[in-house]
Amino acid sequence: MTACLYGLGVGPGDPELITLKALRLLQAAPVLAYPAPETGDSLAREIVAGHLPGGQIEVAIRMPMVVSRFPAQEIYDWAEGELGRHLEEGRDVAVLCEGDPFFYGSFMYLFGRLAERFPVEVVPGVSSLTACAASLGAPLAARNDVLIVVPAPLPEAELAARLAKVEAAAIIKVGRHFEKVRRVLTELGLADRARYVERATMVTQKILPLEAVESDDVPYFSMILLHRRGEAWQR
Amino acid sequence: MTACLYGLGVGPGDPELITLKALRLLQAAPVLAYPAPETGDSLAREIVAGHLPGGQIEVAIRMPMVVSRFPAQEIYDWAEGELGRHLEEGRDVAVLCEGDPFFYGSFMYLFGRLAERFPVEVVPGVSSLTACAASLGAPLAARNDVLIVVPAPLPEAELAARLAKVEAAAIIKVGRHFEKVRRVLTELGLADRARYVERATMVTQKILPLEAVESDDVPYFSMILLHRRGEAWQR
Repeated sequence: MTACLYGLGVGPGDPELITLKALRLLQAAPVLAYPAPETGDSLAREIVAGHLPGGQIEVAIRMPMVVSRFPAQEIYDWAEGELGRHLEEGRDVAVLCEGDPFFYGSFMYLFGRLAERFPVEVVPGVSSLTACAASLGAPLAARNDVLIVVPAPLPEAELAARLAKVEAAAIIKVGRHFEKVRRVLTELGLADRARYVERATMVTQKILPLEAVESDDVPYFSMILLHRRGEAWQR
Repeated sequence: MTACLYGLGVGPGDPELITLKALRLLQAAPVLAYPAPETGDSLAREIVAGHLPGGQIEVAIRMPMVVSRFPAQEIYDWAEGELGRHLEEGRDVAVLCEGDPFFYGSFMYLFGRLAERFPVEVVPGVSSLTACAASLGAPLAARNDVLIVVPAPLPEAELAARLAKVEAAAIIKVGRHFEKVRRVLTELGLADRARYVERATMVTQKILPLEAVESDDVPYFSMILLHRRGEAWQR
């Protein structure tokens, strides 16, 4: 029996939005790993804190506050060594991933480094994409709509080009790019079809119309959803 | 206390991929409703069958095999009446939704009809989008990739235009449109970057390269994922 690396989607924030499968595997794993800021608590670990049985080895993968490159290769080199050592010694490792491991998640960098050497199982989770739609009470897309997921860090002209003709869009990683995104949506005449949500399903969740958002106070975990018809089920 | 309509995402197929929250609510609801074919079993109900406590009222929303219009309004008129009656009489209704209720799901048509009259809560679920990526062992998208979700029923020229410059794409509702999609991807030189999966996370799951798929045997619950870089974590 070779030890296994698990990538566990723990869902968007509400601890009750974890799956039975992720819960079973995270409670059984001798080693837990999770992304964390340079100092302070890991959001992924906070989500599951109430589910932990205690006594597990924990590995925090701490990302520097300022990253010059994307992703921070040194941190993943270090994590590859740490997790690889546990796996070689026969201990399963469960990596906790906010939302879903393969939806823009940092887990894929560990996966890319470790999947050739060890068995890997990825357990999908509820992603922020559908969590935001549920919190907003607004379907993402219907019928033969094309849905586009657009990262807000893209240059303004590219954002405008990508969003010009969409039926349905989710703009992710908004954070400090909010003002640029609001400008693009306003110029495209789409601002009143867009809805802003931060920290969907968490107790700190906020939902605001675009004009009410303070642009210097937008967290990374925020998203803007829009639908050209206003509501997806309308024709 | 007014009765509540719940839209519960039950996940992509593996019964263990339901969330704790959906499980709690579906077990507590006096009335369960779910989409079903004209004859035979409901996939959404099959997913949760092992979790049901027994004794619940069940309402199957049976879609005709051949629908001339999209969606079948008469069925939703009927369902609105049935579910509305239970809600008016104070019984919570849990609608079981494959995957996520607001990701191209039929729940939105009930939502559109009932949300003005009754409280509604939508519980997001693991969507087929991330379930397919997990089953394939292939990240959907990374960094500042734009991810596009494209329904296969679109006309061939539109599919080709939409897919011509993508970084990452998920082609959904493949079914009888498989041959058209394969032709488009081949002409765009993307066929070897695409992966086919049907019934992700179910015991009947199949993963095939495009050239090995029998086009007359492709179910509605199938998806093609592709990434221009081959693997999302590569540059």
